[in-house]
Amino acid sequence: MRKVYVVGVGMTKIDRHYDKGFAELVHEAFVKAYEDSRGAEPEAVVVGNMLSSSLYQQDSLTALVADAMGLRGRGGFKVEAACGSGGYAFVAGYSLVASGLYDVIAVVGVEKMSDYPTARVTSALAQAADAEHEVIYGASFPGLNALAMRLYMKIYRASREDLALWPVRMHEYAYYNPYAQLRNRITVEDVLKSTTIADPIKLMDSAPVGDGAAVVILASEDMAKKFNDTPIQIAGVGLGSDALDLSSRDDLLKPLSIVKASEKAYRMAKVESKDIDVAEIHDAFTITALLCIEGLRFAEWGTSWKMIKEGRFTKDDKPALNLSGGLKARGHPVGATGVYQVAEIAMQLRGDFPGVKASSPSIGLALNTGGVATLTSVVILKR
Amino acid sequence: MRKVYVVGVGMTKIDRHYDKGFAELVHEAFVKAYEDSRGAEPEAVVVGNMLSSSLYQQDSLTALVADAMGLRGRGGFKVEAACGSGGYAFVAGYSLVASGLYDVIAVVGVEKMSDYPTARVTSALAQAADAEHEVIYGASFPGLNALAMRLYMKIYRASREDLALWPVRMHEYAYYNPYAQLRNRITVEDVLKSTTIADPIKLMDSAPVGDGAAVVILASEDMAKKFNDTPIQIAGVGLGSDALDLSSRDDLLKPLSIVKASEKAYRMAKVESKDIDVAEIHDAFTITALLCIEGLRFAEWGTSWKMIKEGRFTKDDKPALNLSGGLKARGHPVGATGVYQVAEIAMQLRGDFPGVKASSPSIGLALNTGGVATLTSVVILKR
Repeated sequence: MRKVYVVGVGMTKIDRHYDKGFAELVHEAFVKAYEDSRGAEPEAVVVGNMLSSSLYQQDSLTALVADAMGLRGRGGFKVEAACGSGGYAFVAGYSLVASGLYDVIAVVGVEKMSDYPTARVTSALAQAADAEHEVIYGASFPGLNALAMRLYMKIYRASREDLALWPVRMHEYAYYNPYAQLRNRITVEDVLKSTTIADPIKLMDSAPVGDGAAVVILASEDMAKKFNDTPIQIAGVGLGSDALDLSSRDDLLKPLSIVKASEKAYRMAKVESKDIDVAEIHDAFTITALLCIEGLRFAEWGTSWKMIKEGRFTKDDKPALNLSGGLKARGHPVGATGVYQVAEIAMQLRGDFPGVKASSPSIGLALNTGGVATLTSVVILKR
Repeated sequence: MRKVYVVGVGMTKIDRHYDKGFAELVHEAFVKAYEDSRGAEPEAVVVGNMLSSSLYQQDSLTALVADAMGLRGRGGFKVEAACGSGGYAFVAGYSLVASGLYDVIAVVGVEKMSDYPTARVTSALAQAADAEHEVIYGASFPGLNALAMRLYMKIYRASREDLALWPVRMHEYAYYNPYAQLRNRITVEDVLKSTTIADPIKLMDSAPVGDGAAVVILASEDMAKKFNDTPIQIAGVGLGSDALDLSSRDDLLKPLSIVKASEKAYRMAKVESKDIDVAEIHDAFTITALLCIEGLRFAEWGTSWKMIKEGRFTKDDKPALNLSGGLKARGHPVGATGVYQVAEIAMQLRGDFPGVKASSPSIGLALNTGGVATLTSVVILKR
């Protein structure tokens, strides 16, 4: 298999960009990635996006994106796996280069969410769940995650206070990340007294609504050094799925998609969970963080909340998790998030992430998932 | 680059399947492909689909599709490029195997369109065009294609009668294809007296609304012979794009996306247009067929209508075009169409297509496009 490298990354701050459309966001992120790669010109584009079809009535988004990058004529396609679209787009883009089809491609994650009323956005986000067996009966996306959180707290005897520590930490990290959406520090008390979204999920357990674009430029081995003095190798990728509806799953707290995707990525990269120095995981809600940590084998099932309480997974630990501030506080422009994560890990490995840094990491991981851990991708990067 | 082969194909008849959902259609097509490949079990799934997000409020479709195939846990993603989704999904799936990431994968095209009123479907199809610069001003998708048809007729002095010959031929072929949606023979007069959809486009210039699923199983070279005595090699693939809005294009009648995609595919397959024995092209409307024929260099610009009139591109010609009946009469379950095309070409090359057959073809081509030739993929297969 051809080796593939990340040779350029760029992103916009995540925010409610009322004054910017898809094209403006993509342009801004691409110009940064282009400069970061000393002018690498992508031959094709893969776009990660969830909501353009349902909210903006815009399919064919790739043509708009390619034009915004000055790449009219180049081919490409959009990948959709709900909130996991960005990570899957990255894997699709990786394989376009690994196969030898292209030498240089761009993976673009872009999402606009702010322009619509919250109720409309919430209903579009529920498209990640099973329309015919869940949503039609009134289930919201936070509601389905609340089922998992309640079960987790009951089975593993974790308290609501215990589970408030994660978002507090995420806001602390985001405070230092110039691209993050929520840069205010919060306390456990702030989490507990915030509005209940779907009991036991509080507002401050939940990723915010925001807009943003991130671009990662990939190149084959023979081109990589030309574009970047510190190209970052893609050492492993893995994909996994689970039943779309929660009621069909074997175990709501041991997500099959995360187990399958991480097993494949570890095997391909020839590493184990204990080798990972730094990772970005998918904490759309606090419960999602716990399921990711355990599914990745950073903790035994049911123990991640205790390890967080003991101060594990912080910036000097191995692995250091979500130094960006995570989906919770860096933000979660849904279909773009997976591309942000890969860009952040690449910067951590290069040592130029502009926020909280891990200490000299050499192996990093990004986990992005769509639905309630329904469609998961895991990417492992090496310096 | 690893060689990749088509080792199994399956499809449902295209029809208004009011009694079948996504899962039932996929299951039916996959069982056929599975048997055709003597039990090849895909490690991952790529889905081509346009409308599940906008019409059915269902994202994460891949999880539902994997479950319907008995492949829960396997990863995968959905590719969207409007009506070109299936062809792009095929290219994405091809690269997953060519790269060495997987040895066996399934590309699934599936679309449901019948359950909604025509006005709702027409509006969902318009998402292939530019929401912000075209659709908001009242443009429909047939309306945008009508602009191209009118311009073509004016510049190249083709009459409405001349352009009625294509759909007549498509219905003739579909009559013999058991999977086709419209198996009635029609005359030039039938076309001319059919309802005007968007002048000069008549109802009988237009692909029908229908549901269907097609599955193509791909395998690496070392596995291919195990699964099929006549594996069909993927010799070339190419992608191309054009401006999303027609007003930004250099030339509405020389679609950049088709030119770029076909150039790349020919180069990769080391063939020229004159080497193609049999092809399936994207005739969502009669005008689209002409643009495909010319963009692929099967005819000089502006001359395809004359060649059709002279009886070219029929079953004994080289290339023989759309022996399935094409989008016009085989049907056009939009995001699935590109997968139908590849399956049909593979069967033509194997000699077991159950409708009108080309005479001993060895090189075949499939062209699928989304929007008004906005996002095009070209796939070249060799026996």
